[in-house]
Amino acid sequence: MNEGARTRLVLGGARSGKSGLAQRLAEVGGGDLVFLATAEAYDDEMRERIARHRADRDARWRTVEAPRDLVAAIAREDGEGRTLLVDCLTLWLSNLLLAGEDLDAAGAALGEAIGTVRGRIILVSNEVGFGIVPENALARAFRDEQGRLNQRIAARCEAVDLVVAGIGMRIK
Amino acid sequence: MNEGARTRLVLGGARSGKSGLAQRLAEVGGGDLVFLATAEAYDDEMRERIARHRADRDARWRTVEAPRDLVAAIAREDGEGRTLLVDCLTLWLSNLLLAGEDLDAAGAALGEAIGTVRGRIILVSNEVGFGIVPENALARAFRDEQGRLNQRIAARCEAVDLVVAGIGMRIK
Amino acid sequence: MNEGARTRLVLGGARSGKSGLAQRLAEVGGGDLVFLATAEAYDDEMRERIARHRADRDARWRTVEAPRDLVAAIAREDGEGRTLLVDCLTLWLSNLLLAGEDLDAAGAALGEAIGTVRGRIILVSNEVGFGIVPENALARAFRDEQGRLNQRIAARCEAVDLVVAGIGMRIK
Repeated sequence: MNEGARTRLVLGGARSGKSGLAQRLAEVGGGDLVFLATAEAYDDEMRERIARHRADRDARWRTVEAPRDLVAAIAREDGEGRTLLVDCLTLWLSNLLLAGEDLDAAGAALGEAIGTVRGRIILVSNEVGFGIVPENALARAFRDEQGRLNQRIAARCEAVDLVVAGIGMRIK
Repeated sequence: MNEGARTRLVLGGARSGKSGLAQRLAEVGGGDLVFLATAEAYDDEMRERIARHRADRDARWRTVEAPRDLVAAIAREDGEGRTLLVDCLTLWLSNLLLAGEDLDAAGAALGEAIGTVRGRIILVSNEVGFGIVPENALARAFRDEQGRLNQRIAARCEAVDLVVAGIGMRIK
Repeated sequence: MNEGARTRLVLGGARSGKSGLAQRLAEVGGGDLVFLATAEAYDDEMRERIARHRADRDARWRTVEAPRDLVAAIAREDGEGRTLLVDCLTLWLSNLLLAGEDLDAAGAALGEAIGTVRGRIILVSNEVGFGIVPENALARAFRDEQGRLNQRIAARCEAVDLVVAGIGMRIK
């Protein structure tokens, strides 16, 4: 599992098993486990997903909600012997977009935060660019922003995994 | 080609060459070749695709239609020295969804069936989760179900391949 | 970087970093660098993208526009000690489709052209088939044509890379 990497990006499609892989990688590493949840429960579909993911984590995990102030949460929760799991950057980016925030500045700040953690950090993100061009302009813009963010974070992380059908491939 | 695996999932995008790779893997293995077709010809576009795929297979193949009762067809056709090729799980799942069947139970039954075959089985499925979130709720639900099914079947198979532009990558 | 391959296809999703990787591969190879641009600036979004890509290339590059007559441009620009970078086949295919040209014949001609270059050629293309089936019939048709073209060109090239989050994976 190469659990030794201190900074790691786990990329995958929808229902690819990326969150499960990220959790296993964090748990193998041991130490204090902090789950940085970026989801906001704005409808029933999302509430159900959040509940399902919470139920999948056992008592070793402490959950901190960070739908937008992720960089501040990382600074606050980071520490030696700790593993932060950020799940996921796609919801975080979507929350920032809806809030009208500066996505480029936010991505840069996150990249810097990853470069300075004292503990371990694992970040989960969606790969969304392997389909046909979306007809919806907002979807197209989101796809571009997600791609740029994934490139930026991948460049900052020691390890990157691509997850397909529950199988993680280490690509960096 | 690692044709030795007894149970194998061939995953790929649309027009990625996954059916062609799966056929070559089956033919290299030799023995009796049974094609379990899950397609239902409900419109012209689909009829054309089915005809094109049939024309690509030579006389060594026997074709059995199994648009929904795939698990029963596997039990009936399986045997030592035989290779079953299921093409594809995406159409099967779509047929079950339209018929209002219990997708989770069907996926579990298929997983069990794979675990008990006496011959060889190769299953083709689409990876559909690497695009932007679909606006259509049914498409979103299907994407989730397909992802869950792919994870489940991948966990049951000895070998998994991801196909991109006609090139198979063994990922398990 | 395996810059030694004489014919190479760089595949990836939107904003995956495929153009950047292709440029670096071309520049590492050295010699005369010719950029064969297939983009047509038919709206502001596209004009902005073209300008951004142009700004990313330095003075070593000469740009030739080839939105449709790509095969002729390759024949004209090819030469020993030269590297042609075609960016990208997705826009080229889209331009041909809108012009009502024979896509199969065009793909075959491009495949032949690649097989006979005396210099080096690197081609960039999008992988668009890993999402849910598009509702729009033209989008479905385009997805199929793009998949067929990628398979055909991948079969002709010595090297193929898949790019995810800026990371190139050599898959052939």
